[in-house]
Amino acid sequence: MLIFMPHYFKLKTVERIKIMKNHYSIGIDFGTLSGRSVLVDLVSKKEVAVEVFEYPHGVMESTLPSGKKLLNDFALQHPQDYLDVLVNTITKLLKHNKVSADDIEGVGIDFTACSMLPVDEDGRPLCFRPEYENDPHAYVKLWKHHAAQKQADRINALAKEMDCKWLARYGGRISSEWFFPKILEILEEAPYIYDHTYRFIEAGDWVVWMMTGVETHNSCMAGYKAMWHKKDGYPDSSFFRRLDPRMENIIGDKVSMNVLPMGAKAGGINENGFSLTGLKIGTPVAVSNVDAHVAMPAAGITEPNKMLMIMGTSTCHMVLGTEENTVPGMCGVVEDGIIKGFYGYEAGQSCVGDHFDWFVRNCVPQSYADEAAAMGISLHKYLRQRAVLQRPGQSGLLALDWWNGNRSVLVDADLSGVILGMTLATKPYEIYRALIEATAFGTRMIIDTFEENGVKIEELFAAGGIADKDEMMMQIYADVTNRNIMLSASPQAPALGSAIFGAVCGGYYSSMDEAAKALGRVKDTMYTPIPENVRIYEKLYKEYRILHDYFGRGENDVLKRLKAVKSI
Amino acid sequence: MLIFMPHYFKLKTVERIKIMKNHYSIGIDFGTLSGRSVLVDLVSKKEVAVEVFEYPHGVMESTLPSGKKLLNDFALQHPQDYLDVLVNTITKLLKHNKVSADDIEGVGIDFTACSMLPVDEDGRPLCFRPEYENDPHAYVKLWKHHAAQKQADRINALAKEMDCKWLARYGGRISSEWFFPKILEILEEAPYIYDHTYRFIEAGDWVVWMMTGVETHNSCMAGYKAMWHKKDGYPDSSFFRRLDPRMENIIGDKVSMNVLPMGAKAGGINENGFSLTGLKIGTPVAVSNVDAHVAMPAAGITEPNKMLMIMGTSTCHMVLGTEENTVPGMCGVVEDGIIKGFYGYEAGQSCVGDHFDWFVRNCVPQSYADEAAAMGISLHKYLRQRAVLQRPGQSGLLALDWWNGNRSVLVDADLSGVILGMTLATKPYEIYRALIEATAFGTRMIIDTFEENGVKIEELFAAGGIADKDEMMMQIYADVTNRNIMLSASPQAPALGSAIFGAVCGGYYSSMDEAAKALGRVKDTMYTPIPENVRIYEKLYKEYRILHDYFGRGENDVLKRLKAVKSI
Repeated sequence: MLIFMPHYFKLKTVERIKIMKNHYSIGIDFGTLSGRSVLVDLVSKKEVAVEVFEYPHGVMESTLPSGKKLLNDFALQHPQDYLDVLVNTITKLLKHNKVSADDIEGVGIDFTACSMLPVDEDGRPLCFRPEYENDPHAYVKLWKHHAAQKQADRINALAKEMDCKWLARYGGRISSEWFFPKILEILEEAPYIYDHTYRFIEAGDWVVWMMTGVETHNSCMAGYKAMWHKKDGYPDSSFFRRLDPRMENIIGDKVSMNVLPMGAKAGGINENGFSLTGLKIGTPVAVSNVDAHVAMPAAGITEPNKMLMIMGTSTCHMVLGTEENTVPGMCGVVEDGIIKGFYGYEAGQSCVGDHFDWFVRNCVPQSYADEAAAMGISLHKYLRQRAVLQRPGQSGLLALDWWNGNRSVLVDADLSGVILGMTLATKPYEIYRALIEATAFGTRMIIDTFEENGVKIEELFAAGGIADKDEMMMQIYADVTNRNIMLSASPQAPALGSAIFGAVCGGYYSSMDEAAKALGRVKDTMYTPIPENVRIYEKLYKEYRILHDYFGRGENDVLKRLKAVKSI
Repeated sequence: MLIFMPHYFKLKTVERIKIMKNHYSIGIDFGTLSGRSVLVDLVSKKEVAVEVFEYPHGVMESTLPSGKKLLNDFALQHPQDYLDVLVNTITKLLKHNKVSADDIEGVGIDFTACSMLPVDEDGRPLCFRPEYENDPHAYVKLWKHHAAQKQADRINALAKEMDCKWLARYGGRISSEWFFPKILEILEEAPYIYDHTYRFIEAGDWVVWMMTGVETHNSCMAGYKAMWHKKDGYPDSSFFRRLDPRMENIIGDKVSMNVLPMGAKAGGINENGFSLTGLKIGTPVAVSNVDAHVAMPAAGITEPNKMLMIMGTSTCHMVLGTEENTVPGMCGVVEDGIIKGFYGYEAGQSCVGDHFDWFVRNCVPQSYADEAAAMGISLHKYLRQRAVLQRPGQSGLLALDWWNGNRSVLVDADLSGVILGMTLATKPYEIYRALIEATAFGTRMIIDTFEENGVKIEELFAAGGIADKDEMMMQIYADVTNRNIMLSASPQAPALGSAIFGAVCGGYYSSMDEAAKALGRVKDTMYTPIPENVRIYEKLYKEYRILHDYFGRGENDVLKRLKAVKSI
């Protein structure tokens, strides 16, 4: 009934055609414990449905499937699980929602990173071969695999020694979680695996390869995890030669140089992709993406100076810039790394949700547990119910949020937690609140450091479990940062972000900007700073900064000395 | 059978006479919740028996006996309870042990201090009078009555302004717990009580008065709590006039000038004393004493350079010196204040046992409580069982023990607790141990400060609940201080100390030295430093000192500023 659709005739022909037919995009988000696919209706601009599949092997931290024991700090995954995600979610999405594969405009994929694996010429993971199925180094080394610290230390030392200019782009230090430390670990611990590897590849790029037959290295993972730079490329062969002569020609030989920007099309669904997903041959598939970074367009962010915080066990901060600045202690700046045409900046706090979990597990007395049980609520909720009644500063407590070291802006894993102001009247819920405030001060420090180094932060956006659930914490963040905080609206922000990239690579939208404006969403509710709280937190933040610099910048290295005494 | 007593004939006649008859002394210790009397056999040099009587009114912190509500920070006692202690312990001691009152050579008394009360000309407490029985200011203000902080602040400010030289003898600041702040509180809050008071008197001196009819002010309480000095006397009338004109002539008018040294005889048991105790008229009674200080001779200490630590909820440190030095942050130095002929130095830590109790009440998770319950042990014991397995420094934790401010050496109630070095792997028992170590570092700081100011500390002695029970803690103290620690042997050290003073005042011994050598006892066990622990604690103590000075001596007054923000 045209009378009810007056808007329809104002549209351009191409838009009318789009509406006359159904149009969908699919986003696939590979997390730490499960994968999920979301179906997005590009016409109604709504997420229609989501299908989740838990990895049968989960995270392998103590044994391989064969029962073989793993060393400390190992965290592996089984790549078969990723293929099973495709098989068990995409066909269901189409079938349950009566969607024709003809109507899928494109597919996007995001993945945890760096989660990498060695594969052969056919893209077959080495762990699929019987001769390596009992070798830990043949499996996916998950992002939180921490056994390559020694190798990371050597890479950092050498980069400093050779004065490699890329080091500054990573705040002066690369992490053991990244690409080359994990490769160097394989080379040293399992050289036969290294020898038989055709490609070391991010699991996200590998999944794209399996769906399209095309091998790519997405600029986000290449840039943030493999020290790739749009103009300078990877570190050069002289660096790798000094690291280990066997690695001299690793770039090109064993690491793909086919680095594509975010939003680019990797290829179309091939026969193999069809049998995994039921999608039509030729359906466009975008290059892979990092699960955190892909959440930017899902919150509608395609412009500079808007910082997105993904708040979970740890926090990842992202913001776009128009020029390449060196910000001390950031995790990385990558051109085209988040949205094509911009410099994507990333920073991080290594201990956020983990911090509160530690506290609840270790520091909350039985009396609280009893009361929470009587009220039928979790200990976290019980603590928040009491903490929210406190006004800022009322407890007299102040903490440095370094229980897991400091990622940004000090990049120092040897730092540890500090708390001040306890008296015999101090209550557990007050300490809980002080720890939350400490993480907010840590975020404020990151924001200030960006601003002091040429990257303005005008608005804050938040996504992730904490942003969705913890109103007290979000208000504290608004008060401490003295900024409005908008919330990403999708409960599946990374999957939605991937669907946006899918729709762009399929040509349904002409730009990320257009796509993100159409599909990205924030909630109606927004946290705004409360002036009297801002005033008090301003005082406390001043104290935080003094202590941050005193303990973190060499004035008193007691935390490092205490750590040294631990291992006497 | 003389053949079995060869030693007997080697003794001088006077000693033989002593042995031929029974000789006893009685010590009466008035604590915070109960009084106890101990009977000491001067011949066998043994504590024969002890009788305890709990105060029926306990500590009155919320209401008077009438039900009248008390203000915050009040802590009162009922003087009838003290008389009831005499009635309910001394006669029993004599009867149950078949001891004749003829054989009691003397009686000594020790008391908490400053615990003071207003009395009339007959020594009758004003709270005994019907017209005042409903007035809180007519009762005993117990040592931990904290409602006179305002008055203490004014006294400190005026003493500074008038440059009173006595202030230095108290580490630069007097406490709200002491004599004149409490009197000033009465004057300001209940001037009619002040007007009708004949004497403001320490409860210990009042009990002696009730037993002997003689009013005295013992030099220990006068010196440590009432700013009395052997040569200079009390602060002079010009000071009191400026404090409040009505107080100009308080010394002499309402405060006794009959200050007697420790070990002196106050008088003999009179009719009233006989009816309270059953002791013979004329039995010598020593001047009263402070419960902590009297423990020195009980541990056999009558010489300089031996520090006794009374370790309980808080710790009191005492040492004798041969000259009057000014030690920053000590609680006081009083000539004849502990043992006649010496300068008695006192210092203190305001939060020791209290600290660990706070931790156990507030910071220990249910899982620990469950395990302790399954093992049938207390949480304290459970924590110690795990903490004792740690080597020094293993946890990477370091704390400043200021949960209740810092008494010595900083004399600053506005300081608060600090803890450093927490990680996500930190365990509650590690924090518990760090708090214990923090109090040991606090003691080490006191020892070092004494030594740096001319008072050598060669050996340590410990008494009190913690010294008796907590082997791990005592070993940590030995390691941190790098000194041997001997333990007072008597489970009733203060009462034994009082019995020693009783025996001296009765003339059974010619000197405190002789009496303490005869009756004072330490245990056979001694804690000695373990060299490898000393080495590590030396490192940690160096860190403690840096932080102590940084947070405590004005380099970063964040703790005071946090306290100020609390009460915005």
